[in-house]
Amino acid sequence: MLKLHGYFRSSAAYRVRIALNLKGLAYENAFHHLTRGGGEHLRPDYVALNPQALVPALEDDGAVLTQSLAIIEYLEERFPEPALLPKDAVGRARVRAIALGIACEIHPLNNLRVLGYVTKELGHSDAERTKWYRHWIADGFKGIEGLLAGNPATGSFCHGDKPTLADCCLVPQVFNARRFDCDLTAFPTMVRIAEHAASLPAFAAAAPGKQPDAE
Amino acid sequence: MLKLHGYFRSSAAYRVRIALNLKGLAYENAFHHLTRGGGEHLRPDYVALNPQALVPALEDDGAVLTQSLAIIEYLEERFPEPALLPKDAVGRARVRAIALGIACEIHPLNNLRVLGYVTKELGHSDAERTKWYRHWIADGFKGIEGLLAGNPATGSFCHGDKPTLADCCLVPQVFNARRFDCDLTAFPTMVRIAEHAASLPAFAAAAPGKQPDAE
Repeated sequence: MLKLHGYFRSSAAYRVRIALNLKGLAYENAFHHLTRGGGEHLRPDYVALNPQALVPALEDDGAVLTQSLAIIEYLEERFPEPALLPKDAVGRARVRAIALGIACEIHPLNNLRVLGYVTKELGHSDAERTKWYRHWIADGFKGIEGLLAGNPATGSFCHGDKPTLADCCLVPQVFNARRFDCDLTAFPTMVRIAEHAASLPAFAAAAPGKQPDAE
Repeated sequence: MLKLHGYFRSSAAYRVRIALNLKGLAYENAFHHLTRGGGEHLRPDYVALNPQALVPALEDDGAVLTQSLAIIEYLEERFPEPALLPKDAVGRARVRAIALGIACEIHPLNNLRVLGYVTKELGHSDAERTKWYRHWIADGFKGIEGLLAGNPATGSFCHGDKPTLADCCLVPQVFNARRFDCDLTAFPTMVRIAEHAASLPAFAAAAPGKQPDAE
């Protein structure tokens, strides 16, 4: 049985939940509240499991997988159908580039520990922290919209008409941007794809509000 | 002929240079100075090529690949030998997790545009910018060292005794940390591997100082 270590609000865990659902894989949950008690992911037993002290981690038959995109690539290799990457090398590279454009250029700047540093260590107000958040959303979304809009490979999803690794990253990122009331009018392709994806059960069931640990 | 759009000091371009060299692939260069003239990567002709306006990008026979890890995965699929990923799924996931642990958790917080935001938009001093830089190095390196130290899969390189995608990311990140005089005494495994790798021609020839556009 697969076991997912996550947290309902973690964007990276949300990506993996979508991938697990798309592949129809059953899994059990272990929840680690990222703020309660100073952060349950920082406890020694979890750090022993994942030395990066981040969620998600996935246990599969004794193996511990970490980093959301590495976990999804692993699931793709272990459980190839339905595929979350296209068959051609250029298409696979495009899907991975969209996923990495979110996972490397947008999300890392706006996660909990960075926002905490901006207020606590750098002494900024909540308003300045929100400005920081929205700045990196606008900056990063511009690039992703540019990769999607007008590209003939873009379909009802990021790449064609079936969900891929790129959509597993796009949907949580758009969800987060909405949570911080970011203006998304300049990114119609991203919004269209995210709304289409949200209508699918695999995406809907992975949403933060649907998780057993949701508050 | 492969064509790499890069900049000598770009850590992400450095990763791709190492991979190209390890696979013995010839390529031509197009250089985009990231600070001169407001940033040559922001010029319309380059943004038309890569809407994310980031280096590196790799052109291969009409296709344009972006995002360093997606480019290296593409090279791995197109030119499988020598392999930069192990054969087993768990090993591949481990190598990708180390690479992503650097590319998603460390590098994004310390690149040029983020450091610029910390000083120009948030109004911090150069000393506070350096403190920011070193904080995220120390925080991120702790996790990577944890993934490597004492893990039986770690060898003279991050995974076994041959270079992988993980080493393509580790070496540029350690190079950057040294450039900012970060204290690396708590990360002996990372330092050992980076020094071993630096002795190989493929890594040495990819170093920023060896590039034609180096200053």
